[in-house]
Amino acid sequence: MAATETLTAERILEATEEVLRRHGPAKATVVDVARALGVSHGSVYRHFRTKAALREAVTKRWLDRTSEALAGIVADTSRDPERRLRDWLAALFEAKRHKAGDDPELFATYVVLTGEQGRAVAEHLDDLTGQLTRIIEDGVAAGVFSSDDPAATARAVFHTTGRFHDPQYAPEWKDPRTDADFAAVVDLVLRGLRA
Amino acid sequence: MAATETLTAERILEATEEVLRRHGPAKATVVDVARALGVSHGSVYRHFRTKAALREAVTKRWLDRTSEALAGIVADTSRDPERRLRDWLAALFEAKRHKAGDDPELFATYVVLTGEQGRAVAEHLDDLTGQLTRIIEDGVAAGVFSSDDPAATARAVFHTTGRFHDPQYAPEWKDPRTDADFAAVVDLVLRGLRA
Repeated sequence: MAATETLTAERILEATEEVLRRHGPAKATVVDVARALGVSHGSVYRHFRTKAALREAVTKRWLDRTSEALAGIVADTSRDPERRLRDWLAALFEAKRHKAGDDPELFATYVVLTGEQGRAVAEHLDDLTGQLTRIIEDGVAAGVFSSDDPAATARAVFHTTGRFHDPQYAPEWKDPRTDADFAAVVDLVLRGLRA
Repeated sequence: MAATETLTAERILEATEEVLRRHGPAKATVVDVARALGVSHGSVYRHFRTKAALREAVTKRWLDRTSEALAGIVADTSRDPERRLRDWLAALFEAKRHKAGDDPELFATYVVLTGEQGRAVAEHLDDLTGQLTRIIEDGVAAGVFSSDDPAATARAVFHTTGRFHDPQYAPEWKDPRTDADFAAVVDLVLRGLRA
């Protein structure tokens, strides 16, 4: 990579992802990342003080890609709350299924990393259930959903649909029945939410 | 063990479970099982033709213990369908949580075995969703549940509650929020089923 380019955190994270893809999470080192960027490992440490901090940041970046894509659906009030909730759940499932199917090695790498990064995962789950909470609140305000506690309901919706976003189930997503199973679960949950 | 006792399949399976608990699924052999029973390995092979058949039978027995306990709830028509469904889901969760918490080594052993025994697991899941189907059919007949296809609805109910019976989630079952999470999911699902 051209040494004249400024070494940004984002450039380091891109290189880290590529190194993780190539070497796997057990073997990837900060020296590999520095070598891929044509810089010293000291330069990498100026942005990420430890290898653990770098692994956490790259995991967070991967998780945030999903939540950022979904935030647009939450904000799109031109769609009614039921439509937004269906689209949000479908988009979450599609995002996960694509990550798992398009690049299985990178997906497996991130499954290992998320297993290590409890705090980054907890923040990600809070972010996603926070998005769901906003859709449910809008539905309650519009009189189409019923919930005494939208945050608790959001958590329940997230848990009921876990089969279609929890990476543990990735092998099941190739099952030909999966799309019908997903539709049946979403219909049941939406019926449960209606006022 | 007294050699005068008749060597039944059930006695072999009991001994196999004990051997698995002691040696773990990777190391347990048919010779260990025969030794624990004080018989020749030929005697064991007369009941189970291969080591694989023995492992499948012991896995099936472990899975069947759960389904047999639940069958009583399905048959108890003195309870209305909603009550039966709530009790069934709670009993399934309790059974799994007990298996995981009371004897973690044996539970870990069976998690390995179920990973190998795809057919036994598929039959077990069919058995459980079949039980759910009967409760839902009774609810539809009584006019309290709504479903065009009770078998598909049963599958959806099973999937929405996976967090509370799929052994993959066993580590989460110690989380202090788990009981509240389970109650919220069951309430949401029951609302979705109501006619």
